[in-house]
Amino acid sequence: MRKNLLGQKKSHLVADWNALERVFIRPENEATRITLVKYMEQILFGLHEFLNKNVGITEEISLKELSKNFTDTRIGKHPEKKLADVITDIVKEIAPHAVNVASPYFVGHMTSAIPFFMVHLKTIVSALNQNVVKLETSKVVSVIEKQVIAKIHRLIYNMNELFYQTHVQNTTTSLGCFTEGGTSANLTALWVARNAAFPPKNGFKGIEIEGLSAAFRAYNIERAVVLVSVRAHKSLKKSGGILGIGNQNVIAVDVDDRSRIDISLLKQEIRQLKKDGKTKIIAIVGIAGSTETGSIDPLREMAEICKKNDTCFHVDAAWGGPTLMSEKYRHLLNGIELADSVTIDGHKQFYMPMSCGMLYFKDPSIMDLMAYHANYINRRGSVDLGIKTFSGSREANSLILDSALKIMGTRGYALLIEHGIEVAADFAEEIESRENFELVTKPVLNILTYRVFPKQLKKEHEAGDDDQKKAINARLNEINRIVQQVQREAGNSFVSRTAFKMKKNPNEQMVVLRCVMMNPMTNMSILKDILDEQEKIYLDWDAGKLKNKGRSRTY
Amino acid sequence: MRKNLLGQKKSHLVADWNALERVFIRPENEATRITLVKYMEQILFGLHEFLNKNVGITEEISLKELSKNFTDTRIGKHPEKKLADVITDIVKEIAPHAVNVASPYFVGHMTSAIPFFMVHLKTIVSALNQNVVKLETSKVVSVIEKQVIAKIHRLIYNMNELFYQTHVQNTTTSLGCFTEGGTSANLTALWVARNAAFPPKNGFKGIEIEGLSAAFRAYNIERAVVLVSVRAHKSLKKSGGILGIGNQNVIAVDVDDRSRIDISLLKQEIRQLKKDGKTKIIAIVGIAGSTETGSIDPLREMAEICKKNDTCFHVDAAWGGPTLMSEKYRHLLNGIELADSVTIDGHKQFYMPMSCGMLYFKDPSIMDLMAYHANYINRRGSVDLGIKTFSGSREANSLILDSALKIMGTRGYALLIEHGIEVAADFAEEIESRENFELVTKPVLNILTYRVFPKQLKKEHEAGDDDQKKAINARLNEINRIVQQVQREAGNSFVSRTAFKMKKNPNEQMVVLRCVMMNPMTNMSILKDILDEQEKIYLDWDAGKLKNKGRSRTY
Repeated sequence: MRKNLLGQKKSHLVADWNALERVFIRPENEATRITLVKYMEQILFGLHEFLNKNVGITEEISLKELSKNFTDTRIGKHPEKKLADVITDIVKEIAPHAVNVASPYFVGHMTSAIPFFMVHLKTIVSALNQNVVKLETSKVVSVIEKQVIAKIHRLIYNMNELFYQTHVQNTTTSLGCFTEGGTSANLTALWVARNAAFPPKNGFKGIEIEGLSAAFRAYNIERAVVLVSVRAHKSLKKSGGILGIGNQNVIAVDVDDRSRIDISLLKQEIRQLKKDGKTKIIAIVGIAGSTETGSIDPLREMAEICKKNDTCFHVDAAWGGPTLMSEKYRHLLNGIELADSVTIDGHKQFYMPMSCGMLYFKDPSIMDLMAYHANYINRRGSVDLGIKTFSGSREANSLILDSALKIMGTRGYALLIEHGIEVAADFAEEIESRENFELVTKPVLNILTYRVFPKQLKKEHEAGDDDQKKAINARLNEINRIVQQVQREAGNSFVSRTAFKMKKNPNEQMVVLRCVMMNPMTNMSILKDILDEQEKIYLDWDAGKLKNKGRSRTY
Repeated sequence: MRKNLLGQKKSHLVADWNALERVFIRPENEATRITLVKYMEQILFGLHEFLNKNVGITEEISLKELSKNFTDTRIGKHPEKKLADVITDIVKEIAPHAVNVASPYFVGHMTSAIPFFMVHLKTIVSALNQNVVKLETSKVVSVIEKQVIAKIHRLIYNMNELFYQTHVQNTTTSLGCFTEGGTSANLTALWVARNAAFPPKNGFKGIEIEGLSAAFRAYNIERAVVLVSVRAHKSLKKSGGILGIGNQNVIAVDVDDRSRIDISLLKQEIRQLKKDGKTKIIAIVGIAGSTETGSIDPLREMAEICKKNDTCFHVDAAWGGPTLMSEKYRHLLNGIELADSVTIDGHKQFYMPMSCGMLYFKDPSIMDLMAYHANYINRRGSVDLGIKTFSGSREANSLILDSALKIMGTRGYALLIEHGIEVAADFAEEIESRENFELVTKPVLNILTYRVFPKQLKKEHEAGDDDQKKAINARLNEINRIVQQVQREAGNSFVSRTAFKMKKNPNEQMVVLRCVMMNPMTNMSILKDILDEQEKIYLDWDAGKLKNKGRSRTY
């Protein structure tokens, strides 16, 4: 690493009122204006050039080495740098060590390239600096937020025109809310479900006011549970911990061979839970696009089960939600319109910048269950959006989504969605055609998992007994861990890895490689390169040609 | 309102793969580059010009009328607009109906002008689009985040150099975390405090795993409470609701005549709570800069009380935290270094764009109490910051704060802080010198409250009996509601209003006007204008000259 990054001498800048005025007030003369525009060019194109040059994910510098440059914990009294220098540093010294999530070779996570106009929109939102907690700090933006919430609500629930005319700008009802991300959205959904499960009744003011223990006493209950599949996002378990029901009471039901919640096991679990009469099922959560495999639970069947058992049905469509914009594939989410609440992330398949989550409710009054007021800020009956959100102060991400929908149209988004799904299907075929690989989970959406499975091991596995199969699986796990690590560190491309059990081998934890195909520039040629590289890494390693084989690095 | 805002005909844009490539890939030729820079100029200077022209807060158009233009809930299949048109619309049609929080006449809320470089930094963060949940999607940014967290931790706790060298880049400990805002930070603090109060013990796996009801059984407890002052932010009550302890168990203790928690009442409350042996005090929360009055609780005394009662001490310094950068005024927060955890907001007095919260812990291991792991993303022992945060996917606000600290230095921030405190003191004097006003809460920091109190009513009040005093207070409440509303709607300036009880009149809810002085351009001349305008509004109203006097509008 070049030495000057953090070893720079402090400059002789002084913080005084004049300096402050220069950084605070927007420039008023032409010269400053020109300088400012130059900075912005540097930001937009300096980064752009870096992104074009470095298709790799990381340079080879290890994290431990890197972190040595970031250990000074003192804040300077006077300015260390001018804005231009800070920007230059970021472009030249920081960006090369950031992760190039925009590369079409970066197919490992749900963070990817975003359309460049998104950066413009984020800049506008930041320049306006509205705070949507309160009408007095956002005015028209609160109104736009209500409108775009209704638009996405319509995409999910497709109620009639009268419904939307009644609620779109209604100051007493609410079709949903913006959140920081999917975690806050899922938490909010389960929070509302918990409160709906223990409403006020004679002598009991409701769980929100009196708490969980009092609610259990009032309803003669000993346990509250949430049912999800083993493929559920960790935020659901975390929400169980936060909400006081205990994270062990977020019960993970096994999946079928397509990674969807096993309906018969779900029914069995419910029967079991109902036996003692002391357990309240506050929600069942369906997944529309699981984080690990992109699988979609049988939403319609789950909705029926929820109805029958009088429990709340939440759908975590943080990933898969925008599939609703594709006429070709929206049927994959059939049944989502029966959900009481739906999570969708903006920074995932709406391709918004980090970070934006959303939550939608079928019942426009249900959010009253978590309304909070404060004299100084949110008065009852006001339009203040902060009354019915988990968040307090909050940026106007809604303005970004609203603008993006205008620029893209549903068809623009559909093209992206369809490209991902179809490339994933082609990639799955390619994997299946290669003798040294095994497709583990076939993609429904644009996510798939597979592993390196050398042909000779395939033969041994086929012929082997249970113990031999287990040993081979352990060896495959080792191989795939190494392949993923070496590929990541080489920095040409990036797939992630995860580990789970499949129905066919319920006792074997399998390490798999995971690809998320959301970048429109990711094509079969790139994906074949990635497989070729993995195959070569494996063969080199097997031949003892790799230097650091299997050595676990700090990173 | 100009008719064309939302009445525009849809264009004949088509979403196809070519159009998509244009919006997705950053431009590669000079012509597009020039166009793009023009857009950015429009964003930075179009908005700037609007902000310069409209010192007012809002135009007179009422919210109801405004919202009529935002009722279409269909998303177009094809693009409605090009990026340039969307930006033009925002600059020309949306921004004039947004709130000019950057005006020095906007002194009503904690949202204000931000230095223009903050917009540049936000743009960079957005262009890089790193996701700090995971090292694999952020790399160097995770390292920078750990460093800047250590910097602010040092500002608060000022531990020795060895401590910071041990923890700054330590992958197993954590000095704090970034959150969406103060609400998430306060929730996280109380979440950790709750878990610390009910740790695992023989036969009990801890409250996070087993839940609140099981925890109460294991510890033979019937109630868990949090103690705050009546001036506490509503997020604390909300957190009590979310965490399952019940929001009525977030107990509000009365304040002294300087709006600080009344220590003797606090002690009395604790004695009362301890009587039955069935109540667990999980935390006592001190406020360093209350939302309504800017008051600071006696932190050192509270810390002692917490120590004595073996309970967690959290300080909500969302507002006041950055005062620590002023050598002149940091003593106001004496005792904050004794807190187990401290909330500070970035979008408040660090002048960052919406929205950024932070939470700091004295004990670098305490966050283990809320660590969550997921195979596909956060492995144990990894540097992944997502393991110990409430949030999942999250933008790299830390990069903005880190850069801002370099550009401003502590002295730069101190100048802003000191300006606010000193202008507030001068403003308080000015209010006290005017016969038709009354200063209600004297500022410690840069927030004060006051009310219009016409001189003849002052005389009547002085001479009156209790009933007459009550009647006069009711009349004053009406006057102040009207004055604030009329001034807001006139759009030249903005102060907020709130209502609370003061120790000297414990039975009277007082409506007060509230000013937050954080804009460096807000000076005494502006504040005098604001008082003059209020006085004139009152006198006109009193003389029957106001048209819509007292009529409550939708807004």
